[in-house]
Amino acid sequence: MTKRVLGIDPGLLHTGWAVVDTAGQSRKYIASGVILPKTSLPMSERLVIIFRELTKICEMFAPDECSIEITFVNKNPKTTLILGHARAAAIVAVSNRDIPVFEYEPNKIKKALTGAGHADKSAIDKMVKILLPAANPKTADEADAIAIALAHTNMSAFNQLANLR
Amino acid sequence: MTKRVLGIDPGLLHTGWAVVDTAGQSRKYIASGVILPKTSLPMSERLVIIFRELTKICEMFAPDECSIEITFVNKNPKTTLILGHARAAAIVAVSNRDIPVFEYEPNKIKKALTGAGHADKSAIDKMVKILLPAANPKTADEADAIAIALAHTNMSAFNQLANLR
Repeated sequence: MTKRVLGIDPGLLHTGWAVVDTAGQSRKYIASGVILPKTSLPMSERLVIIFRELTKICEMFAPDECSIEITFVNKNPKTTLILGHARAAAIVAVSNRDIPVFEYEPNKIKKALTGAGHADKSAIDKMVKILLPAANPKTADEADAIAIALAHTNMSAFNQLANLR
Repeated sequence: MTKRVLGIDPGLLHTGWAVVDTAGQSRKYIASGVILPKTSLPMSERLVIIFRELTKICEMFAPDECSIEITFVNKNPKTTLILGHARAAAIVAVSNRDIPVFEYEPNKIKKALTGAGHADKSAIDKMVKILLPAANPKTADEADAIAIALAHTNMSAFNQLANLR
């Protein structure tokens, strides 16, 4: 059975998104992109742009599940709060379409993809190219969203195996 | 001209809301309440409950403007992130109805209501009772939301005066 996963790398400046199909061990790239709300807009309007664009993406691609990165940075509480806002706008958009949202810490995503929780960027990019040669991300945010979607497909496969034992 | 203000005190456990009408120096209490998503639900579903309830409240009461508290707590980055999530779910709901959102720091709200940025809870409650005797908040979150709405009506009046100079 094919399962469609939406991966999201949220941010108030750039929110990367990617749609990947998975069936058993096979993975298929469907689409990806970046949402770029104008920095001149007030925060409330930028959040709504993230919400509305992701709502459209959910309507267009009808993902079965969503995967999103969770990060508890930061030196700066204001930055943490703002990152939390962008993440929540994304989560609300997906969850409002009744699509389950799975959250992963960055090291879990790295580990699911490369086997190492502290893998560097290039190791992840390499793995994404091996698993999804058709994906050709133009930006780092798009590449991260693809990695987040792929990581979830790997973890779901593992979870299913684990449940069968 | 009457302006209707929606005040929101956001939180993942309790989100207080209040609707207040303002025309010149007069203030009129319209409605208030608290959104209480079940704590047993995953965060994504609790955020969607905040979003959907506030969407309904905006449809029902058609506020012209929204006022929300901004806080940059915390000792704990995780708490800050979670507070950011609840705030964003509220902001997205209101902003998605094309209602402008005004954000105020807690000391600005206290100052607008009582004249002192470090006023204590009882001074604020007293002021709310004087300005809106019809309001009878049952919870602290509801009372805070009323104060946030009232503070905005006071600041708007001041802003309008300031612009006339």
